[in-house]
Amino acid sequence: MNRHLALGIDFGSLSGRAMLVDLATGAEEGLVVCPYKHGFIEDTLPSGGVKLPPDWTLQDPADYLDVLASIPRLLAQSRADAAEVVGVGIDFTASTVLPVQADGTPLCFLPAFQSHPHAYVKAWKHHAAQPYANRISELARSRGESFLGRYGGRISSEWLLPKLMQILEEAPEVYAAMDRLIEATDWIVEQLTGQERRSSCAAGYKALWSKRDGYPARGFFTSLDGRLADVVATKLSPQVYPVGSRAGSITAAASALTGLLPGTPVAVGHVDAHVTFPAAGLSRPGQLLMILGTSTCHLLLAEEEKAVPGICGAVEDGILPGYWGYEAGQPCVGDLFDWFVRRQVPPAYHEQAAERSCSIHQVLREKAMLLKPGESGLVALDWWNGNRSVLGDADLSGLLIGMTLATRPEAIYRSLIEATAFGSRLIVEQFEAGGLPVCEIHACGGIAARDPFLMQIYADVLRRPIRVSASRQAAALGSALYGAVAAGPERGGFADIGSAVQHVPREAGTVYESDPSREAAYNRLFACYSQLHDWFGRGGHDIMKQLKALRLETSLP
Amino acid sequence: MNRHLALGIDFGSLSGRAMLVDLATGAEEGLVVCPYKHGFIEDTLPSGGVKLPPDWTLQDPADYLDVLASIPRLLAQSRADAAEVVGVGIDFTASTVLPVQADGTPLCFLPAFQSHPHAYVKAWKHHAAQPYANRISELARSRGESFLGRYGGRISSEWLLPKLMQILEEAPEVYAAMDRLIEATDWIVEQLTGQERRSSCAAGYKALWSKRDGYPARGFFTSLDGRLADVVATKLSPQVYPVGSRAGSITAAASALTGLLPGTPVAVGHVDAHVTFPAAGLSRPGQLLMILGTSTCHLLLAEEEKAVPGICGAVEDGILPGYWGYEAGQPCVGDLFDWFVRRQVPPAYHEQAAERSCSIHQVLREKAMLLKPGESGLVALDWWNGNRSVLGDADLSGLLIGMTLATRPEAIYRSLIEATAFGSRLIVEQFEAGGLPVCEIHACGGIAARDPFLMQIYADVLRRPIRVSASRQAAALGSALYGAVAAGPERGGFADIGSAVQHVPREAGTVYESDPSREAAYNRLFACYSQLHDWFGRGGHDIMKQLKALRLETSLP
Repeated sequence: MNRHLALGIDFGSLSGRAMLVDLATGAEEGLVVCPYKHGFIEDTLPSGGVKLPPDWTLQDPADYLDVLASIPRLLAQSRADAAEVVGVGIDFTASTVLPVQADGTPLCFLPAFQSHPHAYVKAWKHHAAQPYANRISELARSRGESFLGRYGGRISSEWLLPKLMQILEEAPEVYAAMDRLIEATDWIVEQLTGQERRSSCAAGYKALWSKRDGYPARGFFTSLDGRLADVVATKLSPQVYPVGSRAGSITAAASALTGLLPGTPVAVGHVDAHVTFPAAGLSRPGQLLMILGTSTCHLLLAEEEKAVPGICGAVEDGILPGYWGYEAGQPCVGDLFDWFVRRQVPPAYHEQAAERSCSIHQVLREKAMLLKPGESGLVALDWWNGNRSVLGDADLSGLLIGMTLATRPEAIYRSLIEATAFGSRLIVEQFEAGGLPVCEIHACGGIAARDPFLMQIYADVLRRPIRVSASRQAAALGSALYGAVAAGPERGGFADIGSAVQHVPREAGTVYESDPSREAAYNRLFACYSQLHDWFGRGGHDIMKQLKALRLETSLP
Repeated sequence: MNRHLALGIDFGSLSGRAMLVDLATGAEEGLVVCPYKHGFIEDTLPSGGVKLPPDWTLQDPADYLDVLASIPRLLAQSRADAAEVVGVGIDFTASTVLPVQADGTPLCFLPAFQSHPHAYVKAWKHHAAQPYANRISELARSRGESFLGRYGGRISSEWLLPKLMQILEEAPEVYAAMDRLIEATDWIVEQLTGQERRSSCAAGYKALWSKRDGYPARGFFTSLDGRLADVVATKLSPQVYPVGSRAGSITAAASALTGLLPGTPVAVGHVDAHVTFPAAGLSRPGQLLMILGTSTCHLLLAEEEKAVPGICGAVEDGILPGYWGYEAGQPCVGDLFDWFVRRQVPPAYHEQAAERSCSIHQVLREKAMLLKPGESGLVALDWWNGNRSVLGDADLSGLLIGMTLATRPEAIYRSLIEATAFGSRLIVEQFEAGGLPVCEIHACGGIAARDPFLMQIYADVLRRPIRVSASRQAAALGSALYGAVAAGPERGGFADIGSAVQHVPREAGTVYESDPSREAAYNRLFACYSQLHDWFGRGGHDIMKQLKALRLETSLP
């Protein structure tokens, strides 16, 4: 045995990826990608015909266990001895929560609950808890709760508390039967170590917890609903553990499932976006990281606490110890382009892709590349899945303007990409207007790695160079680094995440420079985007909400 | 010989249709559809690689001659003796104009001009003359010209004068070489009879002419451009002939081309929309006819002259003698659905259509039919080809709002249909607000005949019954009736169009009744449509114009 390997397991939206990293060389020694059998559950439950209302997005935790069961395959594929694995780190989408019994069994595994939608995992992009998010925001505002400033003035429907309230209101029997509502990242750690260790990152960004003040006060919960008075003690877990610390070690049962040795250290769980920050080699204030995937997450490290309106979360030590970590995001990026390819592209394009054995995205990109900025006359608002920053409103929807009879699919495709770039520019401008300088822009994630066309548009729209992390599995790499920290120097790992970032080598990535010749046209398109953004998003008119209300009413039986 | 047949030739957007009607039975004795070889010319000239700028739509007059050359085939197919044809009527899209020499030869037929875009036919939907239309409207407003009130306060870029000014400004050599700029309907009459007879319908609705005042005064043209001082005498024709009168008769040359007998009477040319009014059996004030095809034209008969803002034209005796004929329209209806089918529908839908040997439209309709009004959460503005009524602005463009990741193609398809229905409702409401009662709604045209799904949406949105004319070739039937009037009673025809309507039998058509259970949802969607309409169309914001300006600038070489 001559390698020190760390295992990072990244649970994404539609698949889990387990990766082994050699800590001396930084090399990826093996990777297993394990798609979730049920993906996002949005129409009917896997157990049968129960139909879900609009805006519901569930998952089946059995799919997560399949990812853990793929680890023996990873070890075999990597010719790795389990003894070479010094530590394990986990990251997960968030807030992705499931109701469980005291022993960690998901309620949806019980025959009595398997036809009950509320017994399943509510995935991050489950948006049906919006009314509860609105109630929480309003109450916090009326009580002048200080935590509200840390979340940009609005509570997202994607977070834990609105999802918990939805269960309480719509399925009190599930609420009564659950011993805890747990983040999926913490649930995986519990599967591996036998004990729950609530992650400070998930609790801080998604459950209103802070290092200084803990969870909101009892009085706040009581005002929200009398039944929530003891919610922290009875349904959450008062004790929260900092990321970068050790959660425990592999149990005998977990060893049987994964092939890892009992006693292998496991890190406290992390959130998929935040764990990539160190993986990209970042450690300084003013560095902004965009993680571009199905959705986009923006992470900014800063020295100070600032209340920036519309920024989703500010958590002390949330990204790296010693700094404030700020989070913003766009809930629909890769998902938007995939929607377009699935729903809006005619056969001729599919045939071209088939002939050339390339993706439809590639065919569209090559055609869209021939257009100059502004040439198509189109602008879109990228709100197909609501707006997270800077409006924080899941009830908003998509908009496309400027079509003529000459408009071609590639022009629309390009305008959707541009719209997501404009959304990112608004976020960067919001950070800076709020007193947080953005000195460098970095990117990682699947789209950053495989779409130079998109990255060039982002550099042009943002008018700055963008540095792309070379790792195609940035989240899994970040988790592996945390696994190495859980192991500690005595087992071939590291004392803290800063040392891990410094000592594990990383490949150099691509840098996209902005093209000044495109600046004028993009500034004009961005001005159009901003005007539409404010008119539809800031109450100039509530047409999107009227349409959504009508949609919900008419979809009732 | 025992039949009295009338020949109607309808020159539509993409094809010509020649139809023989038995005046005693009303039966269609034969029909030839002759698609234009070059269709709309929007990218490059047929003569070679000359590329056209955005918003140009040309046609090649050789395609129109092909339609005349198909008449021998029609006679053969109908087993008709040419002597049985008592008269011929013509209708054409308008304003569809071409520069010709004194003898009627189109400039584009001359080798010197065949690579010159301005030498070709400018089709009705050629929108590149918008800047000239704006100048004409502004000048007329500033001079308080009384004709402006008859055209809803705005001159359309689709009409003759803006197209003429575009030639003058952008191609003075073409302007100098042309002896006349002629409406295509009048050009066809000239091909058949050897003489020009300007149609009162085309001149009234499309060239600012009126029965009482003639063309605008010399002073107006001089103020517009000194070179236009004598435009009426030198490039138009001062003499205008009422529809319903005889233009002349078939010449020897025309007989050789068409197989019709020399001397066969030919009616003054008509406009395709207006000629359908009698074909639908309509003759009373308060009757509104929607002609639903690639675009939609709304015709309303009224007792009085009223200045209704945003209504395209009010012409005395323009539809039927003794009444004021009002015209409004939507420039993109069937075209919009075809755009969607060509550019936005994924392969699975095409495969279903192929398997079932039906059209993609049918596949989309059947899926869209399962949606309730409002269920998709979408609303569109149907301005892919600008707005004709009630805004009269070709610089507006399309808008779609409310998309989510769950939005399917059929939902968008339905929202596009609904948008055109909302546009029609606004037009009906504008007529009524302007003091012109709308007592009955009738429909004809290709879409009315073949799309019951669309017609039901229109009835629901308009909240009135809609009566669809049974004739699938309403324009050609209307032209045939005018052909019978040109023949006169002495040749087996009629004394006037009223007698023709009364005596030629027509089949009963379908009536669509509105469904009151859908009224509430459609009223809410219509409220959203109206708000978007006013915000984007009435200067709430000029985003569509900013985008178009940028599009034009960036498409320059």
